[in-house]
Amino acid sequence: MDLEKIDSPKFLKNYDTNEMTELAEEIRCFLINKLSETGGHLGPNLGVVELTIVLHKIFDSPKDKFIWDVGHQAYVHKILTGRASKFDTLRKYKGLCGFPKRNESVHDVWETGHSSTSLSAAMGMAAARDMKGTDESVVAVIGDGALTGGMALEALNHIGHEQKDMLVILNDNEMSIAPNVGALHNVLGRLRTAGKYHKAKEELEYLLKKIPAFGGALASTAERVKDALKYLLVSGIFFEELGFTYLGPVDGHDIEALMENIKYAKKTKGPVLIHVLTKKGKGYHPAENDEIGVWHGVSPYKIEAGEQIKPKVAAPGYSKVVSETVRKLAEDDDRISVITPAMTVGSKWEGFEKQFPERLFDVGIAEQHATTMAAGLATQELKPVLSIYSTFLQRAYDQLVHDVCRQNLNVFIAIDRSGLVGADGETHQGVFDVSFLRHMPNMVLMMAKDENELQHMVYTSLQYNQGPIAVRYPRGNGIGTQMDKELKEIPIGTWEVLREGTDVALLSFGPTLQDLLKAAEILEKEGVSARVINARFIKPLDELMMAELMEEGIPMLTVEEAILQGGFGSAVLEYVSDSGYQHGTIQRMGIPDAYIEHGSVNELLKEIGLTPNDIAAKAKKMIPAKQKRA
Amino acid sequence: MDLEKIDSPKFLKNYDTNEMTELAEEIRCFLINKLSETGGHLGPNLGVVELTIVLHKIFDSPKDKFIWDVGHQAYVHKILTGRASKFDTLRKYKGLCGFPKRNESVHDVWETGHSSTSLSAAMGMAAARDMKGTDESVVAVIGDGALTGGMALEALNHIGHEQKDMLVILNDNEMSIAPNVGALHNVLGRLRTAGKYHKAKEELEYLLKKIPAFGGALASTAERVKDALKYLLVSGIFFEELGFTYLGPVDGHDIEALMENIKYAKKTKGPVLIHVLTKKGKGYHPAENDEIGVWHGVSPYKIEAGEQIKPKVAAPGYSKVVSETVRKLAEDDDRISVITPAMTVGSKWEGFEKQFPERLFDVGIAEQHATTMAAGLATQELKPVLSIYSTFLQRAYDQLVHDVCRQNLNVFIAIDRSGLVGADGETHQGVFDVSFLRHMPNMVLMMAKDENELQHMVYTSLQYNQGPIAVRYPRGNGIGTQMDKELKEIPIGTWEVLREGTDVALLSFGPTLQDLLKAAEILEKEGVSARVINARFIKPLDELMMAELMEEGIPMLTVEEAILQGGFGSAVLEYVSDSGYQHGTIQRMGIPDAYIEHGSVNELLKEIGLTPNDIAAKAKKMIPAKQKRA
Repeated sequence: MDLEKIDSPKFLKNYDTNEMTELAEEIRCFLINKLSETGGHLGPNLGVVELTIVLHKIFDSPKDKFIWDVGHQAYVHKILTGRASKFDTLRKYKGLCGFPKRNESVHDVWETGHSSTSLSAAMGMAAARDMKGTDESVVAVIGDGALTGGMALEALNHIGHEQKDMLVILNDNEMSIAPNVGALHNVLGRLRTAGKYHKAKEELEYLLKKIPAFGGALASTAERVKDALKYLLVSGIFFEELGFTYLGPVDGHDIEALMENIKYAKKTKGPVLIHVLTKKGKGYHPAENDEIGVWHGVSPYKIEAGEQIKPKVAAPGYSKVVSETVRKLAEDDDRISVITPAMTVGSKWEGFEKQFPERLFDVGIAEQHATTMAAGLATQELKPVLSIYSTFLQRAYDQLVHDVCRQNLNVFIAIDRSGLVGADGETHQGVFDVSFLRHMPNMVLMMAKDENELQHMVYTSLQYNQGPIAVRYPRGNGIGTQMDKELKEIPIGTWEVLREGTDVALLSFGPTLQDLLKAAEILEKEGVSARVINARFIKPLDELMMAELMEEGIPMLTVEEAILQGGFGSAVLEYVSDSGYQHGTIQRMGIPDAYIEHGSVNELLKEIGLTPNDIAAKAKKMIPAKQKRA
Repeated sequence: MDLEKIDSPKFLKNYDTNEMTELAEEIRCFLINKLSETGGHLGPNLGVVELTIVLHKIFDSPKDKFIWDVGHQAYVHKILTGRASKFDTLRKYKGLCGFPKRNESVHDVWETGHSSTSLSAAMGMAAARDMKGTDESVVAVIGDGALTGGMALEALNHIGHEQKDMLVILNDNEMSIAPNVGALHNVLGRLRTAGKYHKAKEELEYLLKKIPAFGGALASTAERVKDALKYLLVSGIFFEELGFTYLGPVDGHDIEALMENIKYAKKTKGPVLIHVLTKKGKGYHPAENDEIGVWHGVSPYKIEAGEQIKPKVAAPGYSKVVSETVRKLAEDDDRISVITPAMTVGSKWEGFEKQFPERLFDVGIAEQHATTMAAGLATQELKPVLSIYSTFLQRAYDQLVHDVCRQNLNVFIAIDRSGLVGADGETHQGVFDVSFLRHMPNMVLMMAKDENELQHMVYTSLQYNQGPIAVRYPRGNGIGTQMDKELKEIPIGTWEVLREGTDVALLSFGPTLQDLLKAAEILEKEGVSARVINARFIKPLDELMMAELMEEGIPMLTVEEAILQGGFGSAVLEYVSDSGYQHGTIQRMGIPDAYIEHGSVNELLKEIGLTPNDIAAKAKKMIPAKQKRA
């Protein structure tokens, strides 16, 4: 069928197994083709084709609610709900979002991007249904990786207690973003081979019936035996213990088996968990054989060759600069270890892991635990590196305030993907960290102007022993600067002047400084002399340089790829106000008080008004007329 | 023995069971007496007397590490490590901290106040030990309530996977702060009566040996039966599934049983969990019979009468004003429900719960789940009230950013215990919420000047349907103002002038405004005319009034009982800067960039310099000399 003509999933009501099987094949072809041009989350979506078809066959969306955990596996759902024709715009500026989006479709009832939220959302929707007295079904689809997130476990505990009618599909592909870790993973591993328990059950029941002596001896303890048998026979004991009816494991690519189990679950009272085994990348050979997750989220690729097309870059990636610097320092300092919540691959720790397997702790999707575990290591005079994306560090806010900063422990926080991240969009933009880290006492916060300064900041952080210290760095590659051979310490709280100028001072940090330098050139042509300051310490500020700037009375323009409320610009305003300085003009540029959707970073900067031209224009307006030399 | 003479727990090495029993009795008397004068966490500490003695008997602190989850049950540990003589100063300004404190003693290796951090900290310390190659034991003591916190579950998952040598004592008193909820609670309930499984094990083993036919029939499936028996026989199956050796349940007041199990655990490789049953308040009748938690943390009390001495107050408590207003509104609006993480009693929802049992969701200690569940309810057009303490809202930072604010859902967040909280000290001060909520897009944030305005804010919040809205309110009682009979809506983003004045404008929110009025009176006497502005909307600001203030050129002094970095004063600075206004003077007062320890709120305000005198002095300095009329 022509997938682009689908406007509603209702057509599935008349489909039989063969038609659904054929449809699955068509959807796979569509995804493999479309994503080869746009890129996107290939592996996860190829894994849930049959599951999504069956869910839409059995349930009635949007009356029934589907909640897709993490959300990057909702492409099939988008196709079945009338959005196939928009796949050319997937994850592009103003195009189809890579995650569920409520303003795209009534079939998207819950938005995500961060993992482990689905069960709580489903519990809320089920509670709402029961308060309203309606009868819709609520279905959450959660991966085995997301299940280890603390909030998912909190929700399991509460749902099991409340016994609300609800279906949880555990989409078990044995991988989260990277290979999965944790004891729960072992539990699932045992369940995957649980067939033998079902067999044992049959054998034992047969025997118990046939041996009167056995039954007789325990007659007085019938209840005891029933309880004991439950432990013996129910393979999903872990989930049963938490109050769920456990079904499975079910082959997630077997449409008939899915139909049977999901239909049964729909009729069952109380919370049901169906354990579905899927193969990530199913139907596309390179993705099926992917063991480390390179086909999870992909660039455009050549279908036949199975090769992703990545732009050639001369400069090293920021993540790699951090991980390699830490690795080298760890050779001479055995106090260094790395703790990461499922970002071993994402933040390029494979080399470190290979060399120091005992000193890399990938704790799975568990940001809170990762952060406090790092604090625990620091109490023992060790040097933990907490490696985490900016957007996921949000999950550990309280652990930073309460455990790390309050105890003033030497934890080095390497904050990957800070600033705008592009195609992943609003759930993933790393734009809040400046504001939330800046108000935590004892915290030192830096960002480097380029990859060379970044390696020195890593060194500085691991030398520092006065408390927590954080370095934020962006997604992507460096600017191609020369890398120093020798690492050096950068004195805490010092800025540097990158370009001299007398009419206006432009202040920023990170690669944004490149845009400031361009703006200064534009201004130069217009007769304005702009100073550019690398405010590499966001906290503490360089008080000496601030004093000079105030003394001089030069207008200051702060620019940051971070939310403006409480950010770096506010720090400058606070400092100036506290100093009692009657300043001329201070202006701030940055991310406005809103969520920024997906698109390329350059498109987004243009939308926000943070291009070199915007910066130059704003700076020019700040200069008193008499000072203009043009 | 004279407890005040203890300087180290070493004396316990020579103690026999009888001596330990006698010591336990002495410690109980000491605690009951001392706390009757100072107040403090009575119930939890009476519950762990024997446990703490046995831990110090078997292990060697500080070489071996004890990590007390939540930390409020560390009084016995403090007595045994040489701090009995300081109990007169417990939780008082500059006195003994109510929680473990690293600068108090080498025996305090980890500080807490928030729950569920102990397992992650212990994992960090165990990993550090193994990296260093030393051999100390690491022991975490965690309550059944704290176990439901997501980060504790994340840690269980990781510890089970890593198989580090570590002892977890599950202190199960069937209560967290309030009665416990959740499926895990049910698991523990089954374990409490697990004796029957042990009995069943013996019977079944006996039978299996005696019946050759049975053994024979399954001979080919020996492995299967072994696995099955494990399920049958191990009562702590939930924890065993996660990779722990489970021991217990053990009577936590039976010193011999504790000795036996803990000694055994010490020798066992890998992570061990001992399930210890204790009675909260053990040894003091009123506390033993406490079913709702009023003897958990206590005011001074009369020992014989079993009555807590509470200061008589005419004004209603802020928590009660909120809960009663919500309750009344819920009578006519069945969309209203309340979600709270274990704060039903703390935030006074008992009346609501009694009237609307189906509409109160106490999810246990699970702030992340509570917040996202509220978001789920809001997607279904309902009106959830998320009731939470300011300090615990920190745990839900990402859920607020990613789920509530990003989807712009109508969740009303009732933030109890905002501002300084007094005796609970630095882990509990509610001073970060202004800064972290202010930078979340779509958020509306308020604080009321008194209990009457608070009820109108609750009404306003439940009328509002443009997105998330939050009201912060302090611990304690109102100022005794008249309560209006009719509830009314306060227009969003409007402030009010409480007192007219022409020389300086003092801006604040909440009960702090009372101190501003006092400061204005002091200034009046010195010939300075101070305007006092109730900036009840922290976000959004009152733009009309801000424009008037700027137009007028009046100096502005902002005052807030919240951290200064990125707070309300910064919002004013940002607004003024963005407006391009060349202001005269804006100054800010508030909590400095540091953690504030325990003490009475008045003592702390004095230390920080936030008294009416301080405010008046600061304001006076801001006025240009020519303007002074004195």
